[in-house]
Amino acid sequence: MLISGNEYIERLSGYEREIFVKGEKVEDFVNNPNVKPVVNSIALTFDLAKKRDEYSPHSDLVDEKVNRLNYVNRTPEDLMARFDFQRELSMRMGTCNYRCTGADAIGALYPATKEVDERLGTDYHERFLKLLKEIQKKDYACTAALTDVKGDRAKRPKDSRDMYVHVVEKREDGIVVSGAKIHQSGAFAADINFVLPTQTFREGEEEFALAFAAVPEDEGIKYILQNTGYQAKFREGGEFEQGNPKYGDRITCTVLFDNVFIPWERVFIFEDLNAVRKSLTNFANSHRCAGAACKAGFIDSMTGAASLMLKANGLEKVPVLRQKLGEMVGIAEATYGIAIGAATKGWDDHGAWQPNMLMANAGKIIGVEGFNKVIMHLADIAGGIPVTAPSEFDLKNPEIGKLVEKYLQASPNFTTVERLKIIKFIEFWATSSHLLGAIHGGGSPTAAIIFLQYLADLAEKEEAVKENLDL
Amino acid sequence: MLISGNEYIERLSGYEREIFVKGEKVEDFVNNPNVKPVVNSIALTFDLAKKRDEYSPHSDLVDEKVNRLNYVNRTPEDLMARFDFQRELSMRMGTCNYRCTGADAIGALYPATKEVDERLGTDYHERFLKLLKEIQKKDYACTAALTDVKGDRAKRPKDSRDMYVHVVEKREDGIVVSGAKIHQSGAFAADINFVLPTQTFREGEEEFALAFAAVPEDEGIKYILQNTGYQAKFREGGEFEQGNPKYGDRITCTVLFDNVFIPWERVFIFEDLNAVRKSLTNFANSHRCAGAACKAGFIDSMTGAASLMLKANGLEKVPVLRQKLGEMVGIAEATYGIAIGAATKGWDDHGAWQPNMLMANAGKIIGVEGFNKVIMHLADIAGGIPVTAPSEFDLKNPEIGKLVEKYLQASPNFTTVERLKIIKFIEFWATSSHLLGAIHGGGSPTAAIIFLQYLADLAEKEEAVKENLDL
Amino acid sequence: MLISGNEYIERLSGYEREIFVKGEKVEDFVNNPNVKPVVNSIALTFDLAKKRDEYSPHSDLVDEKVNRLNYVNRTPEDLMARFDFQRELSMRMGTCNYRCTGADAIGALYPATKEVDERLGTDYHERFLKLLKEIQKKDYACTAALTDVKGDRAKRPKDSRDMYVHVVEKREDGIVVSGAKIHQSGAFAADINFVLPTQTFREGEEEFALAFAAVPEDEGIKYILQNTGYQAKFREGGEFEQGNPKYGDRITCTVLFDNVFIPWERVFIFEDLNAVRKSLTNFANSHRCAGAACKAGFIDSMTGAASLMLKANGLEKVPVLRQKLGEMVGIAEATYGIAIGAATKGWDDHGAWQPNMLMANAGKIIGVEGFNKVIMHLADIAGGIPVTAPSEFDLKNPEIGKLVEKYLQASPNFTTVERLKIIKFIEFWATSSHLLGAIHGGGSPTAAIIFLQYLADLAEKEEAVKENLDL
Amino acid sequence: MLISGNEYIERLSGYEREIFVKGEKVEDFVNNPNVKPVVNSIALTFDLAKKRDEYSPHSDLVDEKVNRLNYVNRTPEDLMARFDFQRELSMRMGTCNYRCTGADAIGALYPATKEVDERLGTDYHERFLKLLKEIQKKDYACTAALTDVKGDRAKRPKDSRDMYVHVVEKREDGIVVSGAKIHQSGAFAADINFVLPTQTFREGEEEFALAFAAVPEDEGIKYILQNTGYQAKFREGGEFEQGNPKYGDRITCTVLFDNVFIPWERVFIFEDLNAVRKSLTNFANSHRCAGAACKAGFIDSMTGAASLMLKANGLEKVPVLRQKLGEMVGIAEATYGIAIGAATKGWDDHGAWQPNMLMANAGKIIGVEGFNKVIMHLADIAGGIPVTAPSEFDLKNPEIGKLVEKYLQASPNFTTVERLKIIKFIEFWATSSHLLGAIHGGGSPTAAIIFLQYLADLAEKEEAVKENLDL
Repeated sequence: MLISGNEYIERLSGYEREIFVKGEKVEDFVNNPNVKPVVNSIALTFDLAKKRDEYSPHSDLVDEKVNRLNYVNRTPEDLMARFDFQRELSMRMGTCNYRCTGADAIGALYPATKEVDERLGTDYHERFLKLLKEIQKKDYACTAALTDVKGDRAKRPKDSRDMYVHVVEKREDGIVVSGAKIHQSGAFAADINFVLPTQTFREGEEEFALAFAAVPEDEGIKYILQNTGYQAKFREGGEFEQGNPKYGDRITCTVLFDNVFIPWERVFIFEDLNAVRKSLTNFANSHRCAGAACKAGFIDSMTGAASLMLKANGLEKVPVLRQKLGEMVGIAEATYGIAIGAATKGWDDHGAWQPNMLMANAGKIIGVEGFNKVIMHLADIAGGIPVTAPSEFDLKNPEIGKLVEKYLQASPNFTTVERLKIIKFIEFWATSSHLLGAIHGGGSPTAAIIFLQYLADLAEKEEAVKENLDL
Repeated sequence: MLISGNEYIERLSGYEREIFVKGEKVEDFVNNPNVKPVVNSIALTFDLAKKRDEYSPHSDLVDEKVNRLNYVNRTPEDLMARFDFQRELSMRMGTCNYRCTGADAIGALYPATKEVDERLGTDYHERFLKLLKEIQKKDYACTAALTDVKGDRAKRPKDSRDMYVHVVEKREDGIVVSGAKIHQSGAFAADINFVLPTQTFREGEEEFALAFAAVPEDEGIKYILQNTGYQAKFREGGEFEQGNPKYGDRITCTVLFDNVFIPWERVFIFEDLNAVRKSLTNFANSHRCAGAACKAGFIDSMTGAASLMLKANGLEKVPVLRQKLGEMVGIAEATYGIAIGAATKGWDDHGAWQPNMLMANAGKIIGVEGFNKVIMHLADIAGGIPVTAPSEFDLKNPEIGKLVEKYLQASPNFTTVERLKIIKFIEFWATSSHLLGAIHGGGSPTAAIIFLQYLADLAEKEEAVKENLDL
Repeated sequence: MLISGNEYIERLSGYEREIFVKGEKVEDFVNNPNVKPVVNSIALTFDLAKKRDEYSPHSDLVDEKVNRLNYVNRTPEDLMARFDFQRELSMRMGTCNYRCTGADAIGALYPATKEVDERLGTDYHERFLKLLKEIQKKDYACTAALTDVKGDRAKRPKDSRDMYVHVVEKREDGIVVSGAKIHQSGAFAADINFVLPTQTFREGEEEFALAFAAVPEDEGIKYILQNTGYQAKFREGGEFEQGNPKYGDRITCTVLFDNVFIPWERVFIFEDLNAVRKSLTNFANSHRCAGAACKAGFIDSMTGAASLMLKANGLEKVPVLRQKLGEMVGIAEATYGIAIGAATKGWDDHGAWQPNMLMANAGKIIGVEGFNKVIMHLADIAGGIPVTAPSEFDLKNPEIGKLVEKYLQASPNFTTVERLKIIKFIEFWATSSHLLGAIHGGGSPTAAIIFLQYLADLAEKEEAVKENLDL
Repeated sequence: MLISGNEYIERLSGYEREIFVKGEKVEDFVNNPNVKPVVNSIALTFDLAKKRDEYSPHSDLVDEKVNRLNYVNRTPEDLMARFDFQRELSMRMGTCNYRCTGADAIGALYPATKEVDERLGTDYHERFLKLLKEIQKKDYACTAALTDVKGDRAKRPKDSRDMYVHVVEKREDGIVVSGAKIHQSGAFAADINFVLPTQTFREGEEEFALAFAAVPEDEGIKYILQNTGYQAKFREGGEFEQGNPKYGDRITCTVLFDNVFIPWERVFIFEDLNAVRKSLTNFANSHRCAGAACKAGFIDSMTGAASLMLKANGLEKVPVLRQKLGEMVGIAEATYGIAIGAATKGWDDHGAWQPNMLMANAGKIIGVEGFNKVIMHLADIAGGIPVTAPSEFDLKNPEIGKLVEKYLQASPNFTTVERLKIIKFIEFWATSSHLLGAIHGGGSPTAAIIFLQYLADLAEKEEAVKENLDL
């Protein structure tokens, strides 16, 4: 089934959830000024899927069209379609679509459960498919939670048990879990929260080898939202002062699991270190690769803003500034190109197409470096005004409004309001949480480089040199 | 005279000013949550000056100790003392001290007025000294305003007259000026606002060749504050949620000159294109060079925060992360070293010691690149938590506070509150207006590079090659 | 037909050519120490093609297997196979394969001739196919020459006629051309030299709108080889002192056309500005994209060398150095990934599959930046010894040889000779002409960025922002 | 005494030395084509010293003027004069002056010997002063050797004894040493070779704690020159084909100590771990700082070449290329500025003025990054021709010479020979051993960053943050 954005919002309105914003539990969370932009973003993932076949493939599992983000991608073309969807969402919204972790989790749990069943004769895959069918039929929005809070990094998990989501009670009908997952983008506005392990574990740490699906309504789940400057701005309202007024900054939360009961049918990995390794590796590669496509879309948005800013200032013909636009375009196409390359040279893992591991990690690194360069170019093009401009409220003040309007206009082709909207949008790019999000989404660049050390076939390269030099 | 920070605040409280924040005129501006951090920052420039002789030299002009920022620097050592002051202020506050433009203006107007008098037999220098004596005696805080709003960049000033501060009436006792200056850091909390030209002008554009001193109480002056996310956060209060709760983000404003009368004794450049060139060049070089020292102090602050974060996470012994600290230190010392080199190899302009022009501009460029790298290193070290962490308000919530406290602790050597303070401080560095401030303070890097094209003695370098190659 | 490397060398030995090395015309050019490495490189393009089907597709044109580099690629998979071939050749040889320009020219002239015939009813495509069949049947090695010497860049071509290859006489049976093409990699060791225009031309400059095929034996063609330090080293001989003793540095030449007669059947563009634009654009994109794959192979070779060097020094376990290997791998996979992405998202131009233009140019830029970073990493890993080591001749000296052998050994797993071979190979990477080759092959990065300005759909990105912001 | 370059060459001609070039012992070493450029470079250090007082201070030790490079610098101004000398030499020669290690060794051994005498009552300082007086009086050229060959890096020195210069026999009149020092720039053309330890040592490794002065004529000393492509080019002769025909590439050697007797009066550190630490630290900081000034001079030379190349091509007015010149200038001034800053904020160590340690290491890092950027800019400006151009020998060939002359001319303001000289000079910069020399001279950037970790006062920065945040 493909529901509309509005239908998703309607469904969401029927839920009761424990969501905390700036120290207070939220009533009518759907309309809370810090939650609403997330809801708007997710809503677009529904609406856009209906507009393009590429974004709503037919699923044999349920024999109907489903959202690409709930689909098990089986071919390179599937994965490319997902990356195109990702890029377009990023470009249109200038923020997170919140569902890519859900798509990554589906693509990771599908083969992981299948493999463990083949190995041990268990029925995890069946359980997983049952839930997946429901997700596809009801067109649920899914996210995935990985990062445990970890506590003192100098200790191993078993010496910091509470700092990792773990089983506190094993019952006949399910398990009771406790712990906290941090850095969770938009989990509070989803229908399903997959929960996956944060890292691989050693023998003796099986208790942390755990993956399951939670439902935000499960008793004991609490969401505590991040609290950046942009959220304060949104709480103050306005028409466009928030920079990206409709879709907002990327909003993450910490998810508390306070003795949450999970029935067995929603448990997909249990005390199996191999399954953890497979699901973690596939999730990480998929997320890094999707992140490269996502960055391309973000850069598209920044490039569009930069181009408009040049025009609004009357500077669109200055060669050295136009050259910066050219560089921004090149960076977007590079990161997107790597994602497409990774899909093309990917591999089938038990029926789920995975991106090429080497390229997925390379895309992450190039994406972070590129994003940083683009922010610098955008800032260079825009000048200091994105952080020094008066507000829309000043424009409306009877005493100074007319002067502000007069002095903030530049090119006659743009009204002051139009120019100020662009300025505030660029402020958003330069001071929101996106830079840190780009650096750490899917793990730090350092982590990706370490991955590459292990993934790379160094022997093949050494051999080529040895053969060349008769060594 | 050297007053204390509190005396400055007391004096400030006696003033009435037209200051607009988020569309509303402010009452009791000194205690406004968006103005107060600026006041705190400036107050520290008074208190710190009293603590070190280096920061409070004896001025022959008034025969008493004065603040280094109100002093006419005469030697390399003077300039180094100023840069040391700058770096320490930046390190201690993690934000703008708001008075460096005042110091730059004093160092630029001193020789510019002297030179024009020598050339034309005028008395501008005497006028300037008279004001400077008052500034030194009363220990005024000064700022300087340069950047006009400019309007459509495709036009020359005379075709956009209103967009440049200009004389609307010339009277016997003074001039009446109109226009608007943007990007003005902290002008609303100063005692004196110097106003200097934004660029050089061609023949026929003499009407814009203008420098004067305004007093915030002059009728017709209005300040409209910027409005970033951090300002919204400060308006919401808190103990440390604002990241840098005492000194805050760099707060700039747009200064409106709405038919402001300036008596002749406060006019220092009038329709003289040469004086504009000298004052602009000296100001720009001085500001870029001071900016290099300032960046060193900012990087010190970020390095301290990064080092504390590693300890709070239990990661202080990881070699690859320690190496990042080493790089941060290197960048700070590089930018500071260039500023010291520029002071050492500077030049005397009519009794005011100016930094070496080439190095001043080189320092600007290295400073921007370095600042950007350091932000990336800091973000890498800190992880994603600076933008995803719960707030101090969540800690205080009876329902979730204890869980937040438990889950956000890491190293046992730091309480959760201590760790969260560090985290919020790093969030401040990564999402405040400092990155754009670093890029554009003193003009864009592109502008500095163009300057270098013209300043450089390319002929000397060509000659060396020609001699080497017998060309 | 697929001939072997040896058959190619045999055929080459039958030719007479005017080749000048260091001011002297070469006898027995095939065995000249500066030509031989080029011959060895091209020979491998024959031998490797025979080993893998992917590198020797079946051509319908001649109904037999042909070298991938002489094939008209029709699908994304074709282009990927070509890029894989490119990468493997680069990795195995650590130098240019000299035939990629030939492949690019075939892919560019095929649609250009077809399009002009469709437009004007001419028979250029037939002419071209006739030659192509011969090339495929005889398994010729082809190169392509574009860059004219250009002379004073301040002038337009028509004011510098001699500096551009142009028609000096138009005859019934063909044309007589004069001029010089520079930067020609390995043209002297090929069977066919395509000659294409160096740039687009304006109306009135039709005389330079010219593409044809030359044969090195055509009367009046002279090749003047570059003369770098590595060529001097090769002239001195040795077993491995040359670093890359078998395949050598990239050897380019200047090709002089001294009144060369070209029969009409070898003329493919004549006085047609549109055909110039198409062939130039397709050639440039194809070459930049192949260059990205080529750089990946070069980086593979450098990574292999770096890994061996670490082992030869006993440093293979140092984390910070291993991390550099990881970064090198990431860069190789990024550039290769972009090439694969470009092939996947390419387009059909009259039956010849072209890489995606945006990604092709993005790949060029990322390739250059990446190559530079990798050189720095390789140098960092290797230490100073690649440029300070004694020579193989010192090893053989009876007086000092034993001491050299003793002092240059490090890890017991490598003999001194083995370690020295690796060292000299790294010297080759750091001081050969490859860095400049990487920067300028396919045009400068600046040119690629300008291309991107024009290729990019900025309007689409502006629209996305406008829709988001209700502009 | 100040002798001339010619007098130095004359003196050198009187020596007999064991110098091996490409496997053969050299006769008449002064005129050997690979040694001569080194001799020319050192000769300029004598001639230039005579031209400027700044470069030839009065030494109280011998009561006469001496070369700045043999002087014990006592003040910041002294050190700045040395850095100015360094920069000018680098700019004029475009290569190593070979004596800066000698100057660094004098500045390091002076305080190290003084300190050890104060601590232990020994007479090392007196011995050192005796030699220094002779050096100053006779105007000797000195170098210093540090880097041992080290062998297997996985072992400690005592398990690889032969790989470190060490005492093989202790006699009444002196010591006998064996071992090999690598990376020694120009040692074979000096009068004195200081030998210093390559690293600090632990207790139990006292046998390697050793510093002394060797004389190239000491029996058992053998020099084996590096053998890069440029050396092969120089062996082939020519007028300007070598790029930097007079001063050449940086020529290093491996120095073999084959049971060399060193009398006690030339031994300055003996089995003292503290003295090793002091001399090593001071040497390293001094050399890194001098290296920053040196890189500024190299960049001056490249900037001059780039500017000439633009003119020779008719491109000197293209804004985007001029901007690259501006960036090159900025980088040179930045590295030089740091050196000047380091001299200014340096410290007195027992009467010898040392550069600021933090800045010295920061200068090293910025210097390497800057050098790399400048090479890329130079390459971008020059195009591919520096590695693809014909040779001067082709110009002289009767058959093709005229055509080469015609086709290689560009701007009418430069003859073909003039343009080709510039081209070959740029080839020299891009393919000589300077890039690796810049990276590793004074140790790798990684080493400098590790140094900075330990030198930095992190506690001060942490304290500033803690005070700011009430931690």
